[in-house]
Amino acid sequence: MNRIFFICLVVGIPLSLAANFLHWPAVLSFIIYCLTIISLASYMGRATESLAIIAGPRIGGLLNATFGNAVELIISIFALKAGLLSVVLASLTGSVLGNLLLVGGLSYFIGGLKYKRQMFNVYDAQHNAALMIFAIVVAFVFPEVFSLRLSHAESFTLSIWVSIIMIILYLAALYFKLVTHRGIYVYKIEGAPNEHDDETADWSKKKAITVLALATVAVAFISESLVHTFQEVGRTLGWSETFIGIIIVAIVGNAAEHASAVVMAYKNKVGVTFEIAVGSTLQIAMFVAPVLVLLSIFFQKQMPLIFSIPELVSMVLAVFLTISLTNDGDTNWFEGLTLLAAYVIMGVGFYLL
Amino acid sequence: MNRIFFICLVVGIPLSLAANFLHWPAVLSFIIYCLTIISLASYMGRATESLAIIAGPRIGGLLNATFGNAVELIISIFALKAGLLSVVLASLTGSVLGNLLLVGGLSYFIGGLKYKRQMFNVYDAQHNAALMIFAIVVAFVFPEVFSLRLSHAESFTLSIWVSIIMIILYLAALYFKLVTHRGIYVYKIEGAPNEHDDETADWSKKKAITVLALATVAVAFISESLVHTFQEVGRTLGWSETFIGIIIVAIVGNAAEHASAVVMAYKNKVGVTFEIAVGSTLQIAMFVAPVLVLLSIFFQKQMPLIFSIPELVSMVLAVFLTISLTNDGDTNWFEGLTLLAAYVIMGVGFYLL
Amino acid sequence: MNRIFFICLVVGIPLSLAANFLHWPAVLSFIIYCLTIISLASYMGRATESLAIIAGPRIGGLLNATFGNAVELIISIFALKAGLLSVVLASLTGSVLGNLLLVGGLSYFIGGLKYKRQMFNVYDAQHNAALMIFAIVVAFVFPEVFSLRLSHAESFTLSIWVSIIMIILYLAALYFKLVTHRGIYVYKIEGAPNEHDDETADWSKKKAITVLALATVAVAFISESLVHTFQEVGRTLGWSETFIGIIIVAIVGNAAEHASAVVMAYKNKVGVTFEIAVGSTLQIAMFVAPVLVLLSIFFQKQMPLIFSIPELVSMVLAVFLTISLTNDGDTNWFEGLTLLAAYVIMGVGFYLL
Repeated sequence: MNRIFFICLVVGIPLSLAANFLHWPAVLSFIIYCLTIISLASYMGRATESLAIIAGPRIGGLLNATFGNAVELIISIFALKAGLLSVVLASLTGSVLGNLLLVGGLSYFIGGLKYKRQMFNVYDAQHNAALMIFAIVVAFVFPEVFSLRLSHAESFTLSIWVSIIMIILYLAALYFKLVTHRGIYVYKIEGAPNEHDDETADWSKKKAITVLALATVAVAFISESLVHTFQEVGRTLGWSETFIGIIIVAIVGNAAEHASAVVMAYKNKVGVTFEIAVGSTLQIAMFVAPVLVLLSIFFQKQMPLIFSIPELVSMVLAVFLTISLTNDGDTNWFEGLTLLAAYVIMGVGFYLL
Repeated sequence: MNRIFFICLVVGIPLSLAANFLHWPAVLSFIIYCLTIISLASYMGRATESLAIIAGPRIGGLLNATFGNAVELIISIFALKAGLLSVVLASLTGSVLGNLLLVGGLSYFIGGLKYKRQMFNVYDAQHNAALMIFAIVVAFVFPEVFSLRLSHAESFTLSIWVSIIMIILYLAALYFKLVTHRGIYVYKIEGAPNEHDDETADWSKKKAITVLALATVAVAFISESLVHTFQEVGRTLGWSETFIGIIIVAIVGNAAEHASAVVMAYKNKVGVTFEIAVGSTLQIAMFVAPVLVLLSIFFQKQMPLIFSIPELVSMVLAVFLTISLTNDGDTNWFEGLTLLAAYVIMGVGFYLL
Repeated sequence: MNRIFFICLVVGIPLSLAANFLHWPAVLSFIIYCLTIISLASYMGRATESLAIIAGPRIGGLLNATFGNAVELIISIFALKAGLLSVVLASLTGSVLGNLLLVGGLSYFIGGLKYKRQMFNVYDAQHNAALMIFAIVVAFVFPEVFSLRLSHAESFTLSIWVSIIMIILYLAALYFKLVTHRGIYVYKIEGAPNEHDDETADWSKKKAITVLALATVAVAFISESLVHTFQEVGRTLGWSETFIGIIIVAIVGNAAEHASAVVMAYKNKVGVTFEIAVGSTLQIAMFVAPVLVLLSIFFQKQMPLIFSIPELVSMVLAVFLTISLTNDGDTNWFEGLTLLAAYVIMGVGFYLL
């Protein structure tokens, strides 16, 4: 796996440079950029992981919670700068749907083919369920409903308030999980391997920081180029900007992470899978989305936290489905298949839109 | 009970023939057809049940899962052929509401008057809860929301995709329940009678198949006549087509099954009751509805999977209420009354509509 | 605490009389009325509590269930009489949001600062969750959706039916809890103090009845004056009638009760807190609201049970959030903070509206 990413990188970076400066056709450039970013993202993931292990669980948790969706954040910032608000909102939606339905579904399905029942901490499931209800059902639906009766300026004011409160609550959730209630809600599952016992850092602190810095710069550079291909790719392939945002950008931004979630389920560490799928969703909803709203104050076009109705409904449905399946801390192949079925339905819907 | 159905049948079939060929008044014909179909449905139910017991749990489960709502399916096909799309959608809605709220409510209420607490398998409750969220909350709401922005042809394309995926998932659910995970999620309840210990087939294989075949033909014949009385009955009694579909057709199509659900609760086999009420709901939503959508390709009027807003909202509310009441695998008279209260509210609403 | 209320009362009643007869400025009168009603409400609460203890658990439960929100009911009746329907609906909404998010949130947060985990009866949590789904998600959403297709008279007819059914189910819930299933769903929590062991009546039966009668008369008198200040207070402070109803009236009507909920959580009797917060919500939704609808038959303006969309959505979101947090019968400071965060978001939203 790592070798594939390495090859992609060695080939991808020069090709990306060439595509950018020689103005290669949009679709070709688009593919090159996507593959290169996926490889870079895997390096950023490994660097963050190494730093997190070296720094210990508290600081490590914080690192994962802020850098875990760095690629997504960087692409979105450039899309925001280019005024492509609908692409930004679509890619946030796509990340939520992708994490919950595609990653979750694929992991539980593949893990479930090997093991009849896979179990994880039921307290974590309920804690995360409540946070998803807060972030996606309350904090996303509320401004949407109120915006129907508010002016654009008032909607943006409400969005700023919601964003600030979400970031505070996200930090409070980290403090709760890493400090005041660390190890309180423990739940021993018989026969399950210890989920964190083989954690040794891949890289030294120095190497990790260097890789993280270089990869971040490279991702930023390529993201800017990528964003400018969207319009033409959409025109050429007959895809809407929403479809590109929801399906393509979301997959590119999260591919590396997705791969490791599936691997973990296959190793029967379905608790880690759940942490990745739902944790990443919460990070997108409670940290990346609000940060983008606040950053948009400084850009030309301000972005209120108002999704399109299909986007919002899809996210809410994905949350209810995920909660109803995972609330018992037990997964199997059929539950994975159910999530995948919902993802396919939504993919078709957004393609037709 | 069986004797009543027998008398209804002996009297009903000749009367139905007379009503059809002598063109009796619509309301009278309507009543005769309804009672005859209810009796025929009870025979089809007993035949399917006998075949299921003879065939063993796997094939038996499959038989129940496909023939359980055969009457409903037959009536709907004739309504579809007559172009009465709104009646078809209304009768699907009515089956969902009737199974969850009326049958469930009546059973838990009557069973609860005799027993303080009635318990059933909490894993089944959660498994079925997730399927209801998938089928009704995700797969029914999603095309509805997207259809607002899609052309009629695109809506129908989306409906076909959703229908195919639902049928696949329904078959997968059967495979999960009957093959890969049979007996995995067992849950022993103290003091409860063994739910399947007195199962002996009423009829021989040959007799069951003959009855099933004859009754199906008779149901088909009378259904066609029944469907053509709707318009005039509605005009005469001041009922809307929606009301006829939701309350009348749904009760006629399911009456025999409903009776046995209540009897089971009274015998403290509330697990069987739950299986009938929720299992039948899932069969309607994940099998009958998609099959009708796919069949409509060959009819003059194509039927997208798009309910009216009141129908959709009622079904979603019924699902949330059922899940919140049954999720703990424990019922009592008050929970039954709550479901009945919701059914009455909805009945009044659809009557006024 | 009691001393503060006593002083407020001794000073407040003469000032209220003066404000009313001397026509003091609206904002000043508004503040005086509010503080006096809060003090009177605390006396009514203590009187009801004393009577409930003297009368024993059954009659006591009934007393609490009918007089618990008497102040709210009285203010609403005068607002109804003055034709301020939107204020009545807003104050019902505000009570629901205030009880679930503000009182619940504050109590779990403050209790959680002292105790790592606070536990209460998980059966109660699930029973109340189902009732909230029935009352707010089913019985409030249903008439709203149907009213879009009904005439005003039909909407009111549906509202009357819904109201009668809710009151019947509310009485049935009391009968279930106090008579048929008293002590059935008991759940012993280790280390928790016995929640009802120190209950002795503050006042004698005679004194309690006298205080209750006098305070009720005084609340009625001041409520009438209070209601007539709303319009001018709104104009002066730039608040909408909805905001006054949702935030101010709801807090005034429930302040005394709110204080005792927080005190109980601080004493680790979080079960009592939960009973107050959710019990009061159910009383508002299933008893006060329907009674007001039925009373409105005799007033000039009839009030259908139809909230504004933002009000309805806020209540539904509050219910889902509360259920997802409390369904496990376990609270901590973070869960309290989450509820408070939702309350702040909603407060900002209604202020901007």
